Amino acid sequence: MVERRMPIPVGEAVSKIMNYKRNGETEFVSIYDSYNRYLSEDLVATHDVPHFDRSPYDGFAIRSVDSSEASLTNPVEFEVIDHIGAGMVTTKEVGPFQAVRIMTGAQMPKECDCVVMLELTTSSEREDHTYMSIKRSYKKGENVSFKGEDAKKGDVLVKKGSKINPGIQAILATFGYEKVPVAKKPLIGLYATGTELLEVEDELQPGKIRNSNSHMICAQIERAGAAVKYFGKLPDEFDTCYEAIKNAIDQVDILITTGGVSVGDFDYLPAIYEKLNAKVLFNKVAMRPGSVTTVATLENKILFGLSGNPSACYVGFELFARPIIHTMLFSKKPHLRKEKAILEVDFPKANPFTRFVRSRLSIQEGRLVAAPSGVDKSNIVMSLAGANSFIVLPGGTRGFTAGDEVEVLLLEDTVGSEWPW
Amino acid sequence: MVERRMPIPVGEAVSKIMNYKRNGETEFVSIYDSYNRYLSEDLVATHDVPHFDRSPYDGFAIRSVDSSEASLTNPVEFEVIDHIGAGMVTTKEVGPFQAVRIMTGAQMPKECDCVVMLELTTSSEREDHTYMSIKRSYKKGENVSFKGEDAKKGDVLVKKGSKINPGIQAILATFGYEKVPVAKKPLIGLYATGTELLEVEDELQPGKIRNSNSHMICAQIERAGAAVKYFGKLPDEFDTCYEAIKNAIDQVDILITTGGVSVGDFDYLPAIYEKLNAKVLFNKVAMRPGSVTTVATLENKILFGLSGNPSACYVGFELFARPIIHTMLFSKKPHLRKEKAILEVDFPKANPFTRFVRSRLSIQEGRLVAAPSGVDKSNIVMSLAGANSFIVLPGGTRGFTAGDEVEVLLLEDTVGSEWPW
Repeated sequence: MVERRMPIPVGEAVSKIMNYKRNGETEFVSIYDSYNRYLSEDLVATHDVPHFDRSPYDGFAIRSVDSSEASLTNPVEFEVIDHIGAGMVTTKEVGPFQAVRIMTGAQMPKECDCVVMLELTTSSEREDHTYMSIKRSYKKGENVSFKGEDAKKGDVLVKKGSKINPGIQAILATFGYEKVPVAKKPLIGLYATGTELLEVEDELQPGKIRNSNSHMICAQIERAGAAVKYFGKLPDEFDTCYEAIKNAIDQVDILITTGGVSVGDFDYLPAIYEKLNAKVLFNKVAMRPGSVTTVATLENKILFGLSGNPSACYVGFELFARPIIHTMLFSKKPHLRKEKAILEVDFPKANPFTRFVRSRLSIQEGRLVAAPSGVDKSNIVMSLAGANSFIVLPGGTRGFTAGDEVEVLLLEDTVGSEWPW
Repeated sequence: MVERRMPIPVGEAVSKIMNYKRNGETEFVSIYDSYNRYLSEDLVATHDVPHFDRSPYDGFAIRSVDSSEASLTNPVEFEVIDHIGAGMVTTKEVGPFQAVRIMTGAQMPKECDCVVMLELTTSSEREDHTYMSIKRSYKKGENVSFKGEDAKKGDVLVKKGSKINPGIQAILATFGYEKVPVAKKPLIGLYATGTELLEVEDELQPGKIRNSNSHMICAQIERAGAAVKYFGKLPDEFDTCYEAIKNAIDQVDILITTGGVSVGDFDYLPAIYEKLNAKVLFNKVAMRPGSVTTVATLENKILFGLSGNPSACYVGFELFARPIIHTMLFSKKPHLRKEKAILEVDFPKANPFTRFVRSRLSIQEGRLVAAPSGVDKSNIVMSLAGANSFIVLPGGTRGFTAGDEVEVLLLEDTVGSEWPW
């Protein structure tokens, strides 16, 4: 007799898992290693930017009061008493009708309050002194970048949970974050189960296939921002699997297995969860592919029993494991980002369960359009190569036709959704 | 007197650089290290998939001819002579009215040509023998996944130049690519110039700022798929800079410097290029920010003289250096991906030069919308943190208003454009 399982809706399944979400931990890494990590604290300005009044142009710093009479017919002359570039500070005191030649980014002499652009001046030399003259007046503050103009000390510039991009790297450097507080990468354990599995380096054998799921999931784990501990593959033998899984749990934050969750005669994961005394949250989800995905918890650890079928495995990871990982990375939007798109082709199949179609999302004239990235059979690895999204076709719907608006979940995105279900 | 430079259009500047593009090189890396690298060869199926006829369901493999008389009123009984799971191969010969209990993924016994799903059978035991019976007939090939159904040996499954994603990892594993041919990462040398620069760990000093450009560019180089050799920072001193740059060129594929390219009194890069006998391709581009970007070549190496201004530096890298890097990664679309978007806010400033506005691209009801990611002053690092795109406002245009369609260049994308100008 085939075991009967009661399928639950996807949203309910995700919800059951999220009850067991955990906060992440902070670790400090060198700024040289922080790119692509996730901030675990808000990034705060540690000083004003700029932290001194500076010149935004190449020119001359003067006291505006000295320019008040300058006009086309009445040029006013200044003695140039110093010459500074960015990073230099004048040691001279600037008096009436004196100027400092100043380059972009250099600190304003403290007596000066405006900058005359180089191209609006004429220079001359007399008796070892340099002079420049101007033909218009300048206002106090003209052409000066003032202290604190760009950012004030204490400003929150980037929120925690943000993935560090090149711009954030620049901000970290500006404010002296030599060590950056980032989310510690959750450690995800991985076992592939299946007597049929060969390693990538093995020659093919009758009835056996190479283990592709592990390499796929390792990359998905890395894309999600976590680290992986790959334990290897296991044959479909109860005792071997039981011992291996039992010993793995303590070594990781989360344990993923692939295969063994269906109702076949050699699918031992349900019995292993039972013997471990793990609490099974669900063992059937109203979705295709991946309906046999089984998730259990044991002493606050989550055990993800993903299908051995590559596409089901892929979808199961993204829907169920990713949000737990992103929560540990301090994200407030841990789920796959959901958007609307126009279906590019007909999709005539009815959907008794919610269907996740591996798809290629593109942009045409500013609009998202989506098409299946391959033949939609759950055993076809090939369609995963071109997938950057899932088209979501709700359960209980008949077919869809080209031009219909559908929802899509984005795979290569770091923005996320708060709750897409 | 200020030096006069003749600005050239952005497209022309990029074109001049692309004349010096080089092909990439292949290196072989372990499949465990290949995620996110770029394929340097087409990925070819090394065998049929599946490579044997297999069962897509849990059930019984039979000879279809034996089922021809089965009906609701005339059940036909089969003796179950073996029981195999995925990875197992039966050693029995299946005769008339015999069946093999078979699990999903297992190889078909060679005499059988169809599979009866488990739930459509009734089983019984008699005298130590197991039997199952069926109530309908099956066609030859029914419920069998045939050899080569998903892919044929020799099929090109993924094109070279593709960035390896989780799905491609799965395909690599399936076909036994223990060592993966990927583009060798171009090595990009980096010097930051500027007397005003402090290191990230330094305390602030009057007139000086921390070197943020280097950390930003390092991340941009990594995002572009290349490796960086950071040489450090240099003061604005001609001889020091000349010697350092001269010695660096031979150690890298491409050399990037930041700062020193404007017409300020301490901007020595133009003179250094001259003394090196480098051929300057351009030293002024009709763009904002980044108009002073200077690019030169020397013995087939490209020297990118980016502005010291953070935003100009950022834009200069993405427009000019990225396509050279992506070409070395075997990409046929090495430039930033260009799409159309709706402007979310007014942008009243006129654009004498083509303007690249650091922007936040989002999706609303399936349409791309873009808004500046911060105050558009070229010295504001902060706006770079939120930027995932540039809004492109062509030179010679007046302001734009909310709702206008504009072109955008995508920064966090690996699809690219063939030629966006």
